[in-house]
Amino acid sequence: MARDVAIIGIGMSSWGELWELSLRDVFVKAALAAIEDAGVDRIDAMYIGNMSAGLFNGQEHLAALMADYLGTDAIPATRVESACASGGLAVKLGFMEVALGMSDIVLVGGVEKMTDVGTNDATYALSTAADQEYEVYQGITFPGLYAIMARAHMDTYGTTREQLAQVAVKNHDHGSLNPIGQYPFKITLESVLNSVMVADPLRILDCSPITDGAAALVLCPLELAKKISKKPAVKIIGVGHATDSIALHSRNDITSLPATAKAADMAFKMADVNIKKIDLVELHDCFTIAEICVIEELGIVEKGKGGTAATSGLTRLGGKIPVNTSGGLKSKGHPVGATGVAQVVEIVTQLRGDAGPRQVEKARIGLTQNMGGSGGSTLVHIMEVI
Amino acid sequence: MARDVAIIGIGMSSWGELWELSLRDVFVKAALAAIEDAGVDRIDAMYIGNMSAGLFNGQEHLAALMADYLGTDAIPATRVESACASGGLAVKLGFMEVALGMSDIVLVGGVEKMTDVGTNDATYALSTAADQEYEVYQGITFPGLYAIMARAHMDTYGTTREQLAQVAVKNHDHGSLNPIGQYPFKITLESVLNSVMVADPLRILDCSPITDGAAALVLCPLELAKKISKKPAVKIIGVGHATDSIALHSRNDITSLPATAKAADMAFKMADVNIKKIDLVELHDCFTIAEICVIEELGIVEKGKGGTAATSGLTRLGGKIPVNTSGGLKSKGHPVGATGVAQVVEIVTQLRGDAGPRQVEKARIGLTQNMGGSGGSTLVHIMEVI
Repeated sequence: MARDVAIIGIGMSSWGELWELSLRDVFVKAALAAIEDAGVDRIDAMYIGNMSAGLFNGQEHLAALMADYLGTDAIPATRVESACASGGLAVKLGFMEVALGMSDIVLVGGVEKMTDVGTNDATYALSTAADQEYEVYQGITFPGLYAIMARAHMDTYGTTREQLAQVAVKNHDHGSLNPIGQYPFKITLESVLNSVMVADPLRILDCSPITDGAAALVLCPLELAKKISKKPAVKIIGVGHATDSIALHSRNDITSLPATAKAADMAFKMADVNIKKIDLVELHDCFTIAEICVIEELGIVEKGKGGTAATSGLTRLGGKIPVNTSGGLKSKGHPVGATGVAQVVEIVTQLRGDAGPRQVEKARIGLTQNMGGSGGSTLVHIMEVI
Repeated sequence: MARDVAIIGIGMSSWGELWELSLRDVFVKAALAAIEDAGVDRIDAMYIGNMSAGLFNGQEHLAALMADYLGTDAIPATRVESACASGGLAVKLGFMEVALGMSDIVLVGGVEKMTDVGTNDATYALSTAADQEYEVYQGITFPGLYAIMARAHMDTYGTTREQLAQVAVKNHDHGSLNPIGQYPFKITLESVLNSVMVADPLRILDCSPITDGAAALVLCPLELAKKISKKPAVKIIGVGHATDSIALHSRNDITSLPATAKAADMAFKMADVNIKKIDLVELHDCFTIAEICVIEELGIVEKGKGGTAATSGLTRLGGKIPVNTSGGLKSKGHPVGATGVAQVVEIVTQLRGDAGPRQVEKARIGLTQNMGGSGGSTLVHIMEVI
């Protein structure tokens, strides 16, 4: 790698049903917040993660649009897409742009405006992350795909319906401490277990919501960060990116997420750390079962033991390795293209010691895991405060 | 830049109305052709340009899907989008991946399958490259936007209706020598002037068609290329990328394309050449007026003089600087996400001396210009045979 890369600015729009704002407004709010946080007066290049503004908003060509509305000077601007991992992918490419020396000050953003269409249209748009020809045409939706994974995990490893619910309870406990989220309140085990069935065994409170929102970062070379920023420099020390079959039925084992294992392995190798060195994790809990599978793939628990982690307190604030202190996708919301960037915003907030009531003590190294579809693509980043 | 980057493989699917093939089939055909041409037995990473498979095919998450169907080993795969410049953007990012040393052997592809929807839906999908809220909601389509540019160019510089038509005639003359194209036959001045009106002054034969197709490249470090390829190595010596207002009405001068001028300037500086050193150009003739404006921005002719180039023979095969020897978007077709990659395929074919009846003699340096929307984003690449 040519140059070390630091994160010197973070920003978020509010997250929720933002009917008073357009797609471009939502993005620009987050971008300006990150630029202000970084204290820079220019941007040299931009990467933006977005899954499907074409279907949600009738708008492609997003990077040029956002660069224009942000008032930049005709900079190179790139939109990337990897379904719900689009934000994480934008982080990777921004890292590359700075590491390679193509640009010094790079804005990385993610945005999705999902509530401008009705629920059926949103479900359809999200289904385009699966294999249209072999999965979606058969009638399956994303809750259905993750329900299959959940049922298989229950059958194979004895994971219980209550353990799934405990993931949602934990993440809402964390989210109640994060006012920027869409649903920043606690929920109870009973409310999850009695909520409306979506796709057996998953109920509505096992599912992340449909959200409007954006998140943004400012990256620059570490050497420059030390000169221009008074805040603690957060260095990106590990980057991992892998793919898998997009269709669930093509996997050898539908309780596993090999792309997550592979991306994590790449990031750990690059960072020269292992899971024991990680102080906190933001991961892709699009459904409660996803968090259970992902903590297994990351090596936080052994394969098959993911169900017990939320219950035992291992992954709670105050536990050995807190997971989703932001509230996760479940409580904070899941504007799909923004999620991977917002995960990094939470890690930087924690590593700076700015997380207030949800602060993880002595947090020095954090990890994000952002995944597309039913695990067809995954990005992992590891960050360390310098 | 860390490493020099060479193109060692090129491939195309057939282009046209490919109703017997699915989106993934079209891409895989081009990718396998490029891999075979390169003679490699593995791919380390992939970048794929696609504008709107979401709207055309109900499929996002394209990079993971294509990596899977190509049979790769769970490689990092990235889809990029910049409207009709998506292919050129994929070329830039593939270049970065190799230059940075992230990967050695990188597949760059572009694909669009546009004929699976009706003409109205295709026109809507294409309109998402413009500003939905300020342009498209007012009822304008892309032929309309370029018609405004054409009328302004005619009013300001005296460009004639016949000069527009001569661009189409020239590109079909070239395209008649390229059997892979969608419409590989000659057309006459009279046929253009008498063809159906689309948006005054542009008629149907001023417009590039709706096309299914894919194109692909294999990139690797130049040093490695010399070891593993017997074909002439083609080095990427210049890369330029710039944006502009996405909405036409926000421009100071609607006959100009500042993003093209800026991207070309970046690429010329990096390559340390000027337009006089360029032996041939593939540029974005989505409408005849576009070629006229682009040759002005590239400095092939003075501002306002673009109308005379096709008529004088300057940009014809055998002329001083042949433009669109492949037939251009007009004759070869315009599967929007594939176009920027296919332009590079043509330049490499020419620089290798493999262009048969349309070969440009002593071609050593070639340039591609690929643009999104009405010029809101532009990629320029310069390549030299070593």
